[in-house]
Amino acid sequence: MDQYINPLKSRYASKAMLYIFSPKFKYTTWRKLWYNLALVQKELGIDISNNQLNNLSKHIEDIDFELVEKYEAKFKHEVMAHLYAYADLAGDDARKILHLGVTSAYLMDNTDLIQIKEALLLIESKLIKLIKTLREFSIKHKDLATLAYTHLQEAQLTTLGKRSSLWLQSLIFDFQELKFIMSNMCFRGVKGTIGNQNSFKELFASNFEKAKALDINLAKKMGFDKVYKMTSQTYDRKFDSSILNFLSNLAQSAHKITNDIRFMQHLKELEEHFAEHQIGSSAMPYKKNPIYSERVASLAKFTMSLQSSGGFIAATQWLERTLDDSACKRLNIPQAFLATDAALILLDKIFNNIRVNKKIIENHVKTEMPFILTEDILMKATKNGGDRQILHEKIRIYSMQVRENLYSGATENGLIKLILNDKSFRLTSKDIDEILNPNENIGFASYQVEDFIKEIIDPILKNK
Amino acid sequence: MDQYINPLKSRYASKAMLYIFSPKFKYTTWRKLWYNLALVQKELGIDISNNQLNNLSKHIEDIDFELVEKYEAKFKHEVMAHLYAYADLAGDDARKILHLGVTSAYLMDNTDLIQIKEALLLIESKLIKLIKTLREFSIKHKDLATLAYTHLQEAQLTTLGKRSSLWLQSLIFDFQELKFIMSNMCFRGVKGTIGNQNSFKELFASNFEKAKALDINLAKKMGFDKVYKMTSQTYDRKFDSSILNFLSNLAQSAHKITNDIRFMQHLKELEEHFAEHQIGSSAMPYKKNPIYSERVASLAKFTMSLQSSGGFIAATQWLERTLDDSACKRLNIPQAFLATDAALILLDKIFNNIRVNKKIIENHVKTEMPFILTEDILMKATKNGGDRQILHEKIRIYSMQVRENLYSGATENGLIKLILNDKSFRLTSKDIDEILNPNENIGFASYQVEDFIKEIIDPILKNK
Amino acid sequence: MDQYINPLKSRYASKAMLYIFSPKFKYTTWRKLWYNLALVQKELGIDISNNQLNNLSKHIEDIDFELVEKYEAKFKHEVMAHLYAYADLAGDDARKILHLGVTSAYLMDNTDLIQIKEALLLIESKLIKLIKTLREFSIKHKDLATLAYTHLQEAQLTTLGKRSSLWLQSLIFDFQELKFIMSNMCFRGVKGTIGNQNSFKELFASNFEKAKALDINLAKKMGFDKVYKMTSQTYDRKFDSSILNFLSNLAQSAHKITNDIRFMQHLKELEEHFAEHQIGSSAMPYKKNPIYSERVASLAKFTMSLQSSGGFIAATQWLERTLDDSACKRLNIPQAFLATDAALILLDKIFNNIRVNKKIIENHVKTEMPFILTEDILMKATKNGGDRQILHEKIRIYSMQVRENLYSGATENGLIKLILNDKSFRLTSKDIDEILNPNENIGFASYQVEDFIKEIIDPILKNK
Amino acid sequence: MDQYINPLKSRYASKAMLYIFSPKFKYTTWRKLWYNLALVQKELGIDISNNQLNNLSKHIEDIDFELVEKYEAKFKHEVMAHLYAYADLAGDDARKILHLGVTSAYLMDNTDLIQIKEALLLIESKLIKLIKTLREFSIKHKDLATLAYTHLQEAQLTTLGKRSSLWLQSLIFDFQELKFIMSNMCFRGVKGTIGNQNSFKELFASNFEKAKALDINLAKKMGFDKVYKMTSQTYDRKFDSSILNFLSNLAQSAHKITNDIRFMQHLKELEEHFAEHQIGSSAMPYKKNPIYSERVASLAKFTMSLQSSGGFIAATQWLERTLDDSACKRLNIPQAFLATDAALILLDKIFNNIRVNKKIIENHVKTEMPFILTEDILMKATKNGGDRQILHEKIRIYSMQVRENLYSGATENGLIKLILNDKSFRLTSKDIDEILNPNENIGFASYQVEDFIKEIIDPILKNK
Repeated sequence: MDQYINPLKSRYASKAMLYIFSPKFKYTTWRKLWYNLALVQKELGIDISNNQLNNLSKHIEDIDFELVEKYEAKFKHEVMAHLYAYADLAGDDARKILHLGVTSAYLMDNTDLIQIKEALLLIESKLIKLIKTLREFSIKHKDLATLAYTHLQEAQLTTLGKRSSLWLQSLIFDFQELKFIMSNMCFRGVKGTIGNQNSFKELFASNFEKAKALDINLAKKMGFDKVYKMTSQTYDRKFDSSILNFLSNLAQSAHKITNDIRFMQHLKELEEHFAEHQIGSSAMPYKKNPIYSERVASLAKFTMSLQSSGGFIAATQWLERTLDDSACKRLNIPQAFLATDAALILLDKIFNNIRVNKKIIENHVKTEMPFILTEDILMKATKNGGDRQILHEKIRIYSMQVRENLYSGATENGLIKLILNDKSFRLTSKDIDEILNPNENIGFASYQVEDFIKEIIDPILKNK
Repeated sequence: MDQYINPLKSRYASKAMLYIFSPKFKYTTWRKLWYNLALVQKELGIDISNNQLNNLSKHIEDIDFELVEKYEAKFKHEVMAHLYAYADLAGDDARKILHLGVTSAYLMDNTDLIQIKEALLLIESKLIKLIKTLREFSIKHKDLATLAYTHLQEAQLTTLGKRSSLWLQSLIFDFQELKFIMSNMCFRGVKGTIGNQNSFKELFASNFEKAKALDINLAKKMGFDKVYKMTSQTYDRKFDSSILNFLSNLAQSAHKITNDIRFMQHLKELEEHFAEHQIGSSAMPYKKNPIYSERVASLAKFTMSLQSSGGFIAATQWLERTLDDSACKRLNIPQAFLATDAALILLDKIFNNIRVNKKIIENHVKTEMPFILTEDILMKATKNGGDRQILHEKIRIYSMQVRENLYSGATENGLIKLILNDKSFRLTSKDIDEILNPNENIGFASYQVEDFIKEIIDPILKNK
Repeated sequence: MDQYINPLKSRYASKAMLYIFSPKFKYTTWRKLWYNLALVQKELGIDISNNQLNNLSKHIEDIDFELVEKYEAKFKHEVMAHLYAYADLAGDDARKILHLGVTSAYLMDNTDLIQIKEALLLIESKLIKLIKTLREFSIKHKDLATLAYTHLQEAQLTTLGKRSSLWLQSLIFDFQELKFIMSNMCFRGVKGTIGNQNSFKELFASNFEKAKALDINLAKKMGFDKVYKMTSQTYDRKFDSSILNFLSNLAQSAHKITNDIRFMQHLKELEEHFAEHQIGSSAMPYKKNPIYSERVASLAKFTMSLQSSGGFIAATQWLERTLDDSACKRLNIPQAFLATDAALILLDKIFNNIRVNKKIIENHVKTEMPFILTEDILMKATKNGGDRQILHEKIRIYSMQVRENLYSGATENGLIKLILNDKSFRLTSKDIDEILNPNENIGFASYQVEDFIKEIIDPILKNK
Repeated sequence: MDQYINPLKSRYASKAMLYIFSPKFKYTTWRKLWYNLALVQKELGIDISNNQLNNLSKHIEDIDFELVEKYEAKFKHEVMAHLYAYADLAGDDARKILHLGVTSAYLMDNTDLIQIKEALLLIESKLIKLIKTLREFSIKHKDLATLAYTHLQEAQLTTLGKRSSLWLQSLIFDFQELKFIMSNMCFRGVKGTIGNQNSFKELFASNFEKAKALDINLAKKMGFDKVYKMTSQTYDRKFDSSILNFLSNLAQSAHKITNDIRFMQHLKELEEHFAEHQIGSSAMPYKKNPIYSERVASLAKFTMSLQSSGGFIAATQWLERTLDDSACKRLNIPQAFLATDAALILLDKIFNNIRVNKKIIENHVKTEMPFILTEDILMKATKNGGDRQILHEKIRIYSMQVRENLYSGATENGLIKLILNDKSFRLTSKDIDEILNPNENIGFASYQVEDFIKEIIDPILKNK
């Protein structure tokens, strides 16, 4: 309790995501990389015995972290420390072929990529889940007329399901980017100190095909289809930058969605679930604050801010590699994933418990309808032969007058009366009655939701 | 001369890119959108005459900007101003059907997308050109041994063509992202005030298929294959954010590449072209400064900084749209494209005139070779039966000693002697001679370059 | 019309700010720097004639920009081009002593500082004006009870003047930072190629006091009190970074303030001025959109995004200077000032025409009062001997119940009844009546406003 | 080992800084705030007994974190959980007056400010220490001639002490900003739910002077001189933004300084200390990599990226407060301080063990001198009556020629010969010999260092 506790760890993120970026995951991956290196080298004809392989294989999980720490204090070199600790377990025979022809970047860079891949898969599954939840929500509320807002001013009618489909559209953007990243993702492979596979020229007697085989075969053993053909000591840090872009983009969606929820909760139209004993405010117990949405927005701001560090690193790597990426990479990539994980957990929680106050939504619609239907009135009037631009100007002036009256205390919206009395609109009471029907005034919102889900969402969810 | 002049305009960007973001391009596109709207509406059965269409069609190019200005002073509304000015030309008959069922966002958002698409195409062609240039450069220098640097310290040998292939790899990242964006790009379409195609429900007698047809047919007339099925008043601002991400990513590549060039020019290994009368410095005329590379790095910093504005806008759009995107969008998107355009022009200029000082490169290699071949010595010694970890420690200590001597004035690198004299290395003079051959010490660099170009670059360039 | 037009120039910024960053201002400043250099050199004993000085002095304003362009095409060096053009006017005699001992950075860096200083002064005067306007606004509305919002949920009462004082507090932060920057601002001075005053050692026969005198005397002639004692070729780019920080900070205030206004305009409590013929929306003429506030928020996002470029430049300047600052500096500093200038113009416009709808504000207060006064009820009950924690829990439960009822269609807020009926609150009707008085429920808001203006604002405005 | 471990905690930051942001520090501060609240309330006449105070006072340190956790699981409200746990210890008598009139923000916001203040003090002491170290370094090397670099090209001579004084100048910028922030820093104070001191109007019978006294007296008890006169529920988040600006600015200095060191280590002129058993690279044992400098640069990138989150939060706080600051504040502020703390520890380590390779520096100077002294040659020639512009052009052409020769294998720099042979330079061998003296070519570098330390640095360090 006497040190900083990162709240992503103590409060917000899932155990699964925390594990991916844990020492345990990282260093067992190193051992898997060492073991599989030897295995593939043996397959390609290097003189490595089954006994050596077995001795490596059986000590993948049993890391003695205290011993590692001692070695690191001595060498001030993380890889050397783990190498010695592993070799101590695997024995002197295995020690001879351990780390053969490779350098730190083989372990570090490939492990980073493996962690990122696992983290992306976890994000993908949560994103799919959220998309499914919002799909249900959108279908359920596709016909529920509600006030739309532009400039935060009432503007025509939409439906709640249409609005939530807009959030879905944002998430589809993110999902497509995720698939793009994953389908292009490569293993860094085993390419030596500066990426030229120098040491393998020696080991494989100048046989480039063998060096390539080592690279791709090892990638496959570690779960990758492809390997970068071109690396320096490291894979291009542009990849990390693209990961932070993706996570920032997803954070932008989360920020936008929860801003909308916070606004609707202000209108009392929507409400986050409120636990029985939950205390909204120590001083104002009546309040129902959208605290999960606010937390999502807060985490999103953090994730978005990390984005620039990815670009800064990629842009300032010098020649075959400089180490001014390392400390920052240990902070920005894991925390951007943890914060995104936390945001997705919260969004799921919000939508699984959200309350829709239909009566309030209906009341809001009814009160504002005369105002927001001026476009329809205009359309009808134009259809009846009126001049659009002239009537547009008239309706603008009438609206202003009515508004003034309301501000001065009038309790009734007199707009309809003014229009009926103005013959240039060529409108009858019957025309107006037809116009003032909420179901008639949501445009094709419901159809759009159905069409969108059928054509865009469902193909994505198929087989998920 | 008494107002700020944006140097992207006066100094750096191409006329072609400046035109895409010009008033001329923008407002003729508006007129095309108005004309094609009427055209497709007619095709779908709306009562619009050929005469009305013709009157719109023939006034697409002849914008009277002074008249527009007058209307804008009056209405304080950009679209209204252009609408009136266009209608004045097209006549009262056409005026009646102009802008039928649409709102400002139809013009603004679709035009933004059209500008972005044109700008992406221009960037693509310049990027392809740069990739071709770097492909030639890489092939030409694929065997030219040069010192590699990690931590900005000499580290083994690479080849110049291998290094430039790393730059190619960065650009391939960007190219793939560009293709991804373009293949997913959609038209915003014609969907009314809040995206529900409200006005078209009326116009098309509740026929959703007709509203969809209007949307997609219009998109095709304006050069798009697809249309967003789900929009609010606007297309999702996440798209703009993704554009700024892409341009930032490309800027990161440009920054990294030119940093490398600047460092190589420091070593005198590479040199930007120097015009006959060019003055490097008013005070230090002997200097050859890599000013184009520096300018690219400078423009890249600007482009990278704009990235955050895209995310900020997307994250803070409220409900069906707020206008706090507009002024920023007029600044960040065009300028990010202009700065990228300028950077690509400069990179092309740099690589088409770059000078490679082979003798200097060779000298550097020769001087440092004994040091940088310690890994090979280690490999050979290990192969001859030595213990890798013990010898690694010894070679480290010897290297330190030799380095100390050199710092104290020694003129010869005594490392080889020390190693030959230490029997635990099990190495002969012949072993060492074999090791100290530059061509033997570039690993598979040349093969990698060939393989990379054949398998990755050439398929991309095919048909370009 | 066939090139990109920067809207800061064509639409948003003032002529005064555009002039500060114009070629005219910049290059006449160069000539002033050249002239004053010679003048101070003469004062310090260098052999320069009055005739030479006069020839320089009389050609400060008459820049032949076409001639400059020709020279720049030839030399590809901006300073050389202007030097030749100036010398052509000043004659061969003056030419000999022109630019004596200095380098490009003398002109460029000092001019940048002079432009920044002028721009800061312009911002200061506009900021002072805005502070005065908000001071009046705060005093005028210091007693006007209005709903406060936390989490965007109704939360107790505040006053409009108190809320606007919060905006003032933000601007005071910015004002203090501005004063801090200006009081620490130094001239870069005249220090030669790498800042060591090399050439002046020769000119002044190794007399350091003379070199120092040249530096400070020249600074004073150019309007600065102080000169950096320590520069490389340039002044530390951290200064530029601090300017962008300041402008970003001010943008943050502007964004926060206008977000608040946009929210209040949503509530119809405040309203931006709406010109007679202004069109809010082509499709929804009744709407009154807070477009100036939205524009301020939009410009603020742009300014904030530029901030990172300042830090990136400062962090990546290598050794005595690299030129990867230049192109970016020509874009980020001027545009950050222009966007800030535009935002201040708009804020002034907003507050000079803002409409306060008191009746609406009062209605909102009346409707929500029973809910928001639960803390006061709690205080009174505690004072009457109740247990705070127990009653807090009870009031929470009652509030939830009442809220449920309201959502189910109840038209009256039953909270007060429930509390009066619960004896553990120990409250009488009289107690409640005392509590339900708006003027009694704004806390010390009015006093705070008075105190704040007297103690903090007025001392700042004194002598302004 | 199965969760993410933040390396700032496990590897980089000091115990002292980690403690400031620990739960222990935070929650004992809450109790101090509760206790002192009661104490000052009593002093101002509220009926609070000594016994109640004593019961609060003696349980400040003994936090039962398990109990707190239980309450938090129940209430889902951090403050309530700690309130109950504290009251359980302090007893029912004290419970009645605990948290009297205050809300969560009283604890949270004031504690944030207290943590920031303590963290700033810790940074200040480390910054002072670093300034002292660099002061010594600068004095020691003020006369050591070394090549200056502009555009990363050799450019005249400077001294090592002059270069390190440039770093000092950067740090002085940061130090001044730190002092500015600290001198303006205020306590948030005790102002109730929305900042209007509502509850204290009741408690103090409408006596504003008493409410003000409570505010300022409490501030003083908690170590602050001033209190914000104007707050909403929270202090203005612009303050946090200014903290992140400061830490980013300091990171920019650290990045710039260590970039310079990395370049100099590349030149072998400077060298970070290398521990006896330290392993530079598992594959390239001879290398001496500037890994501490690289780590500083890496941490700096992280800190700089966090800056934007501060601005984003401040700009998007709505009305009297929204909670979308909280989660982000728990991540960005502590980590920016921890990363800065780590960078200062590393910088101190670097400079306390840095090795200056004087012989190498001297060799570099000797080799490049003929080239870099062209300005001096030009000055002398001008003094002897030559035309500056003509000779400038000539020397440029000669330099290019000589450079070409060197690139083609020439081993001697022929520039001086060419100049002596060209009579228009009017220079003798004796002139040239005078020019080619390193000590004569460092300008006033040494004087500047002395002057700067005496006039700028020492006054700052006085009494430190």
